[in-house]
Amino acid sequence: MADDGPSRRFSAAQLRTLTTAIFQAAGAPPATAELVASSLVTANLLGHDSHGVIRVQEYCEEIAAKTLVPDARPTVLAETPTTATVSGHWGFGQVTARYGAEVALRKAQEANVAVVGLVQQNHIGRLGEWSALLARAGLVGMVVTGGWRPPAVSAAPFGGAARILSTNPYSFAIPTGRHDIVLVDFATTVSAEGKVRVARAKGVPVPPGVLIDKQGRPSTNPDDYYEGGALLPAAGHKGYALSVVADLLSILVGADVHGRDWNCTGSFLLALKIDAFRPLAEFAAAADRRLDEVKAVPPAPGFAEVLIPGEPERRSQVERERDGIVVPAATWQALSRTGDRLGLDVERLAAS
Amino acid sequence: MADDGPSRRFSAAQLRTLTTAIFQAAGAPPATAELVASSLVTANLLGHDSHGVIRVQEYCEEIAAKTLVPDARPTVLAETPTTATVSGHWGFGQVTARYGAEVALRKAQEANVAVVGLVQQNHIGRLGEWSALLARAGLVGMVVTGGWRPPAVSAAPFGGAARILSTNPYSFAIPTGRHDIVLVDFATTVSAEGKVRVARAKGVPVPPGVLIDKQGRPSTNPDDYYEGGALLPAAGHKGYALSVVADLLSILVGADVHGRDWNCTGSFLLALKIDAFRPLAEFAAAADRRLDEVKAVPPAPGFAEVLIPGEPERRSQVERERDGIVVPAATWQALSRTGDRLGLDVERLAAS
Repeated sequence: MADDGPSRRFSAAQLRTLTTAIFQAAGAPPATAELVASSLVTANLLGHDSHGVIRVQEYCEEIAAKTLVPDARPTVLAETPTTATVSGHWGFGQVTARYGAEVALRKAQEANVAVVGLVQQNHIGRLGEWSALLARAGLVGMVVTGGWRPPAVSAAPFGGAARILSTNPYSFAIPTGRHDIVLVDFATTVSAEGKVRVARAKGVPVPPGVLIDKQGRPSTNPDDYYEGGALLPAAGHKGYALSVVADLLSILVGADVHGRDWNCTGSFLLALKIDAFRPLAEFAAAADRRLDEVKAVPPAPGFAEVLIPGEPERRSQVERERDGIVVPAATWQALSRTGDRLGLDVERLAAS
Repeated sequence: MADDGPSRRFSAAQLRTLTTAIFQAAGAPPATAELVASSLVTANLLGHDSHGVIRVQEYCEEIAAKTLVPDARPTVLAETPTTATVSGHWGFGQVTARYGAEVALRKAQEANVAVVGLVQQNHIGRLGEWSALLARAGLVGMVVTGGWRPPAVSAAPFGGAARILSTNPYSFAIPTGRHDIVLVDFATTVSAEGKVRVARAKGVPVPPGVLIDKQGRPSTNPDDYYEGGALLPAAGHKGYALSVVADLLSILVGADVHGRDWNCTGSFLLALKIDAFRPLAEFAAAADRRLDEVKAVPPAPGFAEVLIPGEPERRSQVERERDGIVVPAATWQALSRTGDRLGLDVERLAAS
């Protein structure tokens, strides 16, 4: 790797200011630029740097390539009282997903349950942001994304020797009381491609079970992935099965029909109003009691304590809001180069 | 282990006749006895012997202990156009689940989407039976079960050293065309307790990653599970997170309030009518094309081919309908003893 200089540390507000300015300079309306910037910086705060400002360069390249339309506004293509198909019209995925989650929320508030499909979407960021949007309103939220087409695929099916699926992630969010939102957000592969990329840059192996080479043999050499290998599904046939379901749900909502090139991705959002079954406060108290029991389990060797899903993210947020967000050298170079090209005074914006 | 004699081979019809007679003799009405027998024998046909006639003794013991009411009829406790809470009134779980799936089907046919919660349920058998019931009617079906309470728990949380969760399974079923129903049905633990039991009986170790001992250390000794150890979640924090969601969904539907002793289990059924989004035939054709691509991936070393979720079960069914179902000696002894105690001529019934 080239010498990228030192890593840098910024406050969330500084990164939001810079990132908002970049997206505006790239053609996004102010509110859109702010929304996407806030989404990315929140991912950094929560510890998910793979979904943070590292994405700015990629999104701007997509704008330049006209695959991302920075001022597109989502619309409802079809709907019933409990379902809707939302097109993002190839705008920022975050704009599409927020709009779709709000449609799901409104419908579920009326009808108790709603399913919304997103099509013509770009990268929607952390799925957990949209499931949590529903949970904060007192609903259970579920979000699934699938539908990448070759060559934009990364994962082998269980028992297979080549890529055909993607990381097809799942998220669930459930509001509780003292335990806040139980937040689940995972890829159906053992590891994200980003982690393989980091291992390759560092020249270190990946753990066993993450990869196969192009012959389908287990490998720990990150180069093997880039030479025709594939990511393996999490938990073997289980992660594979969830990944197939994610692809089929993207087809169900019509993402294949509305897709183009390798982006036939679609998202499936489910919203369920808890008080259709029992009062939210009563549910929250019962959920807290159960989570207390789980939390009280003594830690296994090598662990400090049992964490509830969502807890690692909340801890990261407290730390990073206090200490700032460390942006690795390569990420900072990409970010500042992107700003430079758009004629921005990057250092001034990042200092403001 | 004691000498249990030889294993036996029966046709599905023979096992259904015997099992139906046993449940009737134990107090189940004829239609109920047939339904539960058919459910168990179908699990055997599909290759899931852990959910097959091995359960007959356990169910009859539950009837004797009055925790299973063999003639109970499920009722709807509360409902809206899109949701319902169904009580099984402690009858056979299969009766509860079938009734609940039919309520979900009816509501989703009207409203496009429905969520049904099951409470006061006993073991509902294979979750895939109820998701597939929905898929056969042209809907997407999702079923999740959780809510076992100590001491009826088996699994450690991620990073924990003791049991607090159960195998909390998930099932998805999606109808396609040539590929039939894509059927997903898995425990959120690496392995079911039944497999540990089998390893212990054979005196062989379990694979690494399945178990921890009572200090929370990794173990391959099946005895360690029975001496205070625990099953590990599938894919670490991912399976753990799904397991927590399953428990919270059981609480959402009120299974804790309606539960008793350690059975606070509840099931969460989601039904979604595909043609709310696109015509079923069009979806099925698009799903087939995608599954063809997945199926066409060359096999990895050690595999003969890539299988679509649900395909292993359909193959087992063809084989076992042709060749019969092998009932291991211990299972046959338990089954025939159960029949004997109820005054049945087991050999005659199993030969009919």
